[in-house]
Amino acid sequence: MTKYVYDFTEGNKDQKDLLGGKGANLAEMTNLGLPVPPGFTITTEACRVYLNEGASPDELGVQVTAAIRGVEAKMGKRLGDAKDPLLMSVRSGAKFSMPGMMETVLNIGLNDKSVLGLGEQSGDERFAWDSYRRLIQMFGKTVMDIEGDLFSDKLHKLQEEKGYSGDLDMTTEDLKYLVDEFKKVVKEETGQDFPQDPRQQLDMAVEAVFNSWNTDRARIYRRREHIPNDLGTGVNVQTMVFGNMGAGSGTGVCFTRDPSTGRSGVYGDYLENAQGEDVVAGIRNTLPLSALEELDKKSYDELTGIMDRLETHYRDLCDIEFTVERGKLWMLQTRVGKRTAAAAFRIADQLVNERLITHDEAVTRVTGDQLTSLLFPQFDPKADKVKVSRGMPASPGAAVGEIVMDNETAVARTREGRKVILVRRETNPDDLQGMVVAEGILTARGGKTSHAAVVARGMGRCCVVGADDLVIDDVAGTMKVKSTGKEYAVGDVIAIDGTTGEIFEGDVPVTDSPVTTFLAEGLEAGLAAADSDDARELVNAVNNIMKHADEKRRMRVRANADNPEDAELARKFDAEGIGLCRTEHMFLGDRRKLIEAMILAKDEAAQAQALDALLPLQRDDFVGIFGAMDGLPVTVRLIDPPLHEFLPDLTKLSVELARKEAAGEEISESEREILAAVLSHHEQNPMLGLRGVRLGLKIPGLIKLQVRAIAEACVLLKKEGKDPRPEIMVPLIGGVREMQIVRDLALDVIKEVSEESGISLDLPIGNMIELPRAAISADTIAAESDFFSFGTNDLTQTTWGFSRDDVEGTFFNEYFDYGVFGISPFESIDVGGVGALVDMGVQRGRYTKPDLKMGVCGEHGGDPASIHFFEKIGLNYVSCSPFRVPVARLEAGRAAIENETTYERKFETKL
Amino acid sequence: MTKYVYDFTEGNKDQKDLLGGKGANLAEMTNLGLPVPPGFTITTEACRVYLNEGASPDELGVQVTAAIRGVEAKMGKRLGDAKDPLLMSVRSGAKFSMPGMMETVLNIGLNDKSVLGLGEQSGDERFAWDSYRRLIQMFGKTVMDIEGDLFSDKLHKLQEEKGYSGDLDMTTEDLKYLVDEFKKVVKEETGQDFPQDPRQQLDMAVEAVFNSWNTDRARIYRRREHIPNDLGTGVNVQTMVFGNMGAGSGTGVCFTRDPSTGRSGVYGDYLENAQGEDVVAGIRNTLPLSALEELDKKSYDELTGIMDRLETHYRDLCDIEFTVERGKLWMLQTRVGKRTAAAAFRIADQLVNERLITHDEAVTRVTGDQLTSLLFPQFDPKADKVKVSRGMPASPGAAVGEIVMDNETAVARTREGRKVILVRRETNPDDLQGMVVAEGILTARGGKTSHAAVVARGMGRCCVVGADDLVIDDVAGTMKVKSTGKEYAVGDVIAIDGTTGEIFEGDVPVTDSPVTTFLAEGLEAGLAAADSDDARELVNAVNNIMKHADEKRRMRVRANADNPEDAELARKFDAEGIGLCRTEHMFLGDRRKLIEAMILAKDEAAQAQALDALLPLQRDDFVGIFGAMDGLPVTVRLIDPPLHEFLPDLTKLSVELARKEAAGEEISESEREILAAVLSHHEQNPMLGLRGVRLGLKIPGLIKLQVRAIAEACVLLKKEGKDPRPEIMVPLIGGVREMQIVRDLALDVIKEVSEESGISLDLPIGNMIELPRAAISADTIAAESDFFSFGTNDLTQTTWGFSRDDVEGTFFNEYFDYGVFGISPFESIDVGGVGALVDMGVQRGRYTKPDLKMGVCGEHGGDPASIHFFEKIGLNYVSCSPFRVPVARLEAGRAAIENETTYERKFETKL
Repeated sequence: MTKYVYDFTEGNKDQKDLLGGKGANLAEMTNLGLPVPPGFTITTEACRVYLNEGASPDELGVQVTAAIRGVEAKMGKRLGDAKDPLLMSVRSGAKFSMPGMMETVLNIGLNDKSVLGLGEQSGDERFAWDSYRRLIQMFGKTVMDIEGDLFSDKLHKLQEEKGYSGDLDMTTEDLKYLVDEFKKVVKEETGQDFPQDPRQQLDMAVEAVFNSWNTDRARIYRRREHIPNDLGTGVNVQTMVFGNMGAGSGTGVCFTRDPSTGRSGVYGDYLENAQGEDVVAGIRNTLPLSALEELDKKSYDELTGIMDRLETHYRDLCDIEFTVERGKLWMLQTRVGKRTAAAAFRIADQLVNERLITHDEAVTRVTGDQLTSLLFPQFDPKADKVKVSRGMPASPGAAVGEIVMDNETAVARTREGRKVILVRRETNPDDLQGMVVAEGILTARGGKTSHAAVVARGMGRCCVVGADDLVIDDVAGTMKVKSTGKEYAVGDVIAIDGTTGEIFEGDVPVTDSPVTTFLAEGLEAGLAAADSDDARELVNAVNNIMKHADEKRRMRVRANADNPEDAELARKFDAEGIGLCRTEHMFLGDRRKLIEAMILAKDEAAQAQALDALLPLQRDDFVGIFGAMDGLPVTVRLIDPPLHEFLPDLTKLSVELARKEAAGEEISESEREILAAVLSHHEQNPMLGLRGVRLGLKIPGLIKLQVRAIAEACVLLKKEGKDPRPEIMVPLIGGVREMQIVRDLALDVIKEVSEESGISLDLPIGNMIELPRAAISADTIAAESDFFSFGTNDLTQTTWGFSRDDVEGTFFNEYFDYGVFGISPFESIDVGGVGALVDMGVQRGRYTKPDLKMGVCGEHGGDPASIHFFEKIGLNYVSCSPFRVPVARLEAGRAAIENETTYERKFETKL
Repeated sequence: MTKYVYDFTEGNKDQKDLLGGKGANLAEMTNLGLPVPPGFTITTEACRVYLNEGASPDELGVQVTAAIRGVEAKMGKRLGDAKDPLLMSVRSGAKFSMPGMMETVLNIGLNDKSVLGLGEQSGDERFAWDSYRRLIQMFGKTVMDIEGDLFSDKLHKLQEEKGYSGDLDMTTEDLKYLVDEFKKVVKEETGQDFPQDPRQQLDMAVEAVFNSWNTDRARIYRRREHIPNDLGTGVNVQTMVFGNMGAGSGTGVCFTRDPSTGRSGVYGDYLENAQGEDVVAGIRNTLPLSALEELDKKSYDELTGIMDRLETHYRDLCDIEFTVERGKLWMLQTRVGKRTAAAAFRIADQLVNERLITHDEAVTRVTGDQLTSLLFPQFDPKADKVKVSRGMPASPGAAVGEIVMDNETAVARTREGRKVILVRRETNPDDLQGMVVAEGILTARGGKTSHAAVVARGMGRCCVVGADDLVIDDVAGTMKVKSTGKEYAVGDVIAIDGTTGEIFEGDVPVTDSPVTTFLAEGLEAGLAAADSDDARELVNAVNNIMKHADEKRRMRVRANADNPEDAELARKFDAEGIGLCRTEHMFLGDRRKLIEAMILAKDEAAQAQALDALLPLQRDDFVGIFGAMDGLPVTVRLIDPPLHEFLPDLTKLSVELARKEAAGEEISESEREILAAVLSHHEQNPMLGLRGVRLGLKIPGLIKLQVRAIAEACVLLKKEGKDPRPEIMVPLIGGVREMQIVRDLALDVIKEVSEESGISLDLPIGNMIELPRAAISADTIAAESDFFSFGTNDLTQTTWGFSRDDVEGTFFNEYFDYGVFGISPFESIDVGGVGALVDMGVQRGRYTKPDLKMGVCGEHGGDPASIHFFEKIGLNYVSCSPFRVPVARLEAGRAAIENETTYERKFETKL
């Protein structure tokens, strides 16, 4: 017989999967000998069977009976006994805490008879009738699905009629009257009487908790928190204790340290003569925990003793709920407490100093996401803000500035020292200049991996995208809010929060982060920037933990950077090289004309001329970047995007020329040529078209130009005594033959430059693995390659058949709703699909060359969960945007520590 | 020491890899005791070393010396001896025959001294000097790279001056003069003297043959014939024999059966007093082989005896070259002879009857491509044709008709009983109606897998694409030929050959194929349609071989068909079901408006209304198809393409509206709405966008409509006592969750229809595997799926990152040139990449469900090489266009037979 019911004496804290978090911790406290009201837990497995079969498993009823008898024996009372009733609470408790998402029913066991017994036993008739009133109200609403307002309206009407100021004014007679009224509501709404059988009450409450797992709000919460939908909840059935039995009773919540700042020392709230719900409802103001010391020193001392014991036992911050019933302390719940990012770092550091945890453990107690939230400036939480609308948070931070809608205005105003927010319907590579100078970027369209979002994250620029409530008219220079009708114009000041996606009106004050200063400038500067003891302790804690993470991590962390400024930034954040230096950005701006000339070239001579003109420009770019990264590797990706990205948009241009024609204006020869070029380069699916290495085979001069620029930049730097370390990376390789051809081309050019200059050059030539076919044939490709870099963005696109530009806005919401995935595969690597291909690429590549260096340079290189996966499959490095480097360092450290202790190779494929 | 040289006595016919075809067969004949002039073969390995290292391997010279000494000993002569010189020929010979692609040098060993000895020994001074003249000319051109015209100009000038009518008029003195002149040419052009050292002549000739492997024409030939570039050629060095030693000498080519018709009985040509080159040069007319019987009965009898022996030995048609030198017969070459498709079938059938080969072998002696060429009507080869231009042959056949450029004209003229060719710049789904009624389709753009090509092949309609020499102006109704300036107009009659890509002017007579009649109507009808004994014997041979192939094949063959007409056609060709019934074509034409209404619907009610209107139409479609395939499975693919395909093109519409606006015309509300819809459905990469199952999750009503139409069609047919067997197929599945959701939706609808009708329905629901992720997670998907169908077109697109619509025209030519692949992965499955994923999908799917039915429905289902791969990995069926069904049946039979005897599982992946 499956065991569905565990008495609190039977479980322990490691059984969260089976008993849920609350149940496991109640059992743990029980077994520690702490004063826990007796009770039992119904397992999550029972819930899963119930939800799948639509009915509770047969054995459950039998096991619940036995468990109730056990509790009755301990308490010397019987459930719902008419004379001296045992009352019980029924509470949900899933593996992961889902506060307020599921149901609770208190005072099970009260009925028309036992209410009298409770009154006599407690010597407080009013308390008994108030408890009965609460039961019917709570049970009616949560178990019998009756609209809650039907009960509360009756209650408020009574209080209004009698002129009461609150619940406490109600008399026993009032409560008896309400019990009657509430019972009538139940009858009217359900056609059934309120159940008088205590066991029936209990069974119904348990099933109501099971059902509450699948309410909309619970599903939405789980989606947001990435909690799987198929876990189910445990149910805790526990003897009631009452904090509302007059003075000498009360209830409270406390923490073993301050979960907000991380300061050490106990911390909490206490409410006299009240039950837990009263605290949650916020009807009365709570007192600080220290008040209990004055009110009831014995209970206070017992509580602080228990807190100490729990923290030592759990080796972490504990979050505790307790009740004092007529001077007797009862522990109702404990768990490892949630905390702010700052508190997480400080507490982990404190616990190391107190010798409660090891340095390794401290690193695993904090997360990259927590570090991220310490890095970005934020709006002052105390400031008054006028909200305009909201979009999707795409790149964290807080930015304030004037609305601008084009590059020219953006540049002009920032030159005057004014701050601007670039507001666009959506962005494209042309907007780069404006994005660079702006404080933040706001778009009405696009998802979290749209152009704006990716570029902004790359620059660490605050960005909000997909604010579809906004209508951006860049001709009129207005931004209209659909929902409110309000309109803002270029020059109006707005503020955007890249962490929440909120958009505000006017100037909102921003606070800066000393942690950022520390990571970029070192400990001394960080401490100097900190303006309080709390902040200084935080900076020290981050320093200690980062130091240990760096010591322990196996993977290197590089940054993605395309220019000397970003390269310097990356170095500041301790990047150990550049993992992705895109070269196409070097063809924008003024140089676009040269690329256009190359594309339009009528013969090879004209093409060569255009390429020759690009050479000194590209060489200067590389001199700048390699110089900034002196002594560290820089992976240069050869040109990747389709050529038509350098030409005007087909539809726009066609419309423009049609208008001209209709207006009788003449269309010039060069306009015709450009249209012809645009037409001939137009592709149905440019993502799958002429780009990457294919460009190189189509226009070998382009690759030769780039390799020559790289090689000549090395020569110049070496002549200055520097140590440039470029690695040439070929994008979009599908099979080994492509790699052979490009490699031969590149080696020839490098040899030429070596011979011309007399300086020997030995530049590694590797390739991206970003097509499924490359991963599949990685064993053959490895023979021609000096390193692999996994381009997981593109690999996700082809493995799933998802165009990043299209799918996020169109059907990803449905996919989240249906649970096809909990998180976008562009945000965190899809381990079962894309990840399996990466793993295959690693294994097959190493099959040919056991020491082949492998890294990842997609967006996933900065994503914590993905970093842990990359650690497990044995990549040599991750590369991410400069601002993510500290996060990646921390997560790589955590992953190495976790791998050391729990490493099991789970990704063996079944082939 | 690697053995690089094999005397003819050392090799055998199975060593083609090492010795090349010619060398292996010369060795085989030598060992059979046939009169082969002694000689030796330098291996292909020596060639590969030479090409890789740029020099011959050291050991080669030593081994050649030994081999020459061996031949000298046999002949009792020494190479280039001044008195009695041994002369040798140097000929290429690769594994696969590449006629005329590489070099030959004859008469090696002649120099200023030995020419005198040869004159004396042969008693024919003129012959000796003519041989020397030929050597210098041939050697100069092929070994020393001198422009051939420099020699032939001298020769022609002499003949002109002397008033000669041909080579035979030249006197000994003339030839001596020419030898002098030719030597001067050599000196002038190369700065070196013509080499007098016979061994140097030989070594240089051998290297020239090696080098000829990499000439442009050889590379182009190999690309066309799919011969790998890295095989290299063997070199055959053989004692010269002379057919030009006067009467009683001669040379000939013969076959053991007629390679053109397949008729039994020897067949060949003979030329008296001539060398092989003279036959090739076509200077004099050859005699039929029977002439030799009269001229030299002894040699004729010996030759026919040898022919018989060779055919018995090779168990196949042999192709033989021989020379008679003064009454002595010499065998110069034999090989299994090339033959026409008709001859292949007839000879295979004859050899079975003659008990030379088994039925199994007969099936492997013919190919699907050969059968294909027997199926399509062809232009009468004897007719006079005026060529207009040529394009790429996309779908075989021969079609004649008036040029039309739009559906309306196409339909109108065919209604009048006229035949039309649809001529378009490129086609799109809108052109379907015109394609259906046209005899053939001609486009100026697009590759072999463009829309026009795929649809035309699907319909078995003759089609030529990518004729980029044509400028199609559909407004003016003209087709202009760029290269000639000629112009044709709508109504002009043209003829297109889908087998060669040629385009002709005017009416060209077409001949029909009795094999097609046989396959579609049965043996009796086929024999009745045959108009000659040859044709009747061919029909019988095809019948015998197809019968055996059908008996032996393991895989089922289904057809792709979207309408009852195609379904009936498929049945005629013995398709065992429909493997792909696309449903999107059912939404075209008049119904497009309903889909447009669904897309534009402002609320769910309007959407439901549009869907409801589609229901009876879809149901009728299915009643037609399931009825036509009564008792056989029909795999219905739910709607797949992106919705915007049903809306106007963005650029076109934008230009249209811009023009209207510029002209001051008002733009209607509905035009604005359509533009808005087009904009909101526009995708950057529609291939990777909102399509397939994603549409189903976004608009569940669409799937419900389709499933209901399928289920209701079944109910209607079952009520008529029929046996409909639809299988519902979900496209573009990436993971199991998508499949679960659609499956649940579909099962609900099927249950509803079952309950409404009282007729129980049990319809299999399976999915396409056409994304890498589906192949990777096939084990989990299998749990929710009743069958898999591999969509290898789309799988190729995502695995390689190739958009079929874009890449073939832009860079595939470079990819062929560079040898990235020998054949487009869209034509024949890319075994190492896409094939590995299909294999992975098969293995993982069967891991979960060992009996899961699996098929393929991409274009590859009709491709011979791909069919063999699918047999090896264990698919249950292939599906192809109705006209390819006989080909697929034959190839599946061949594959099963080959697999039975040589089956080795080569596709184990290395994971």
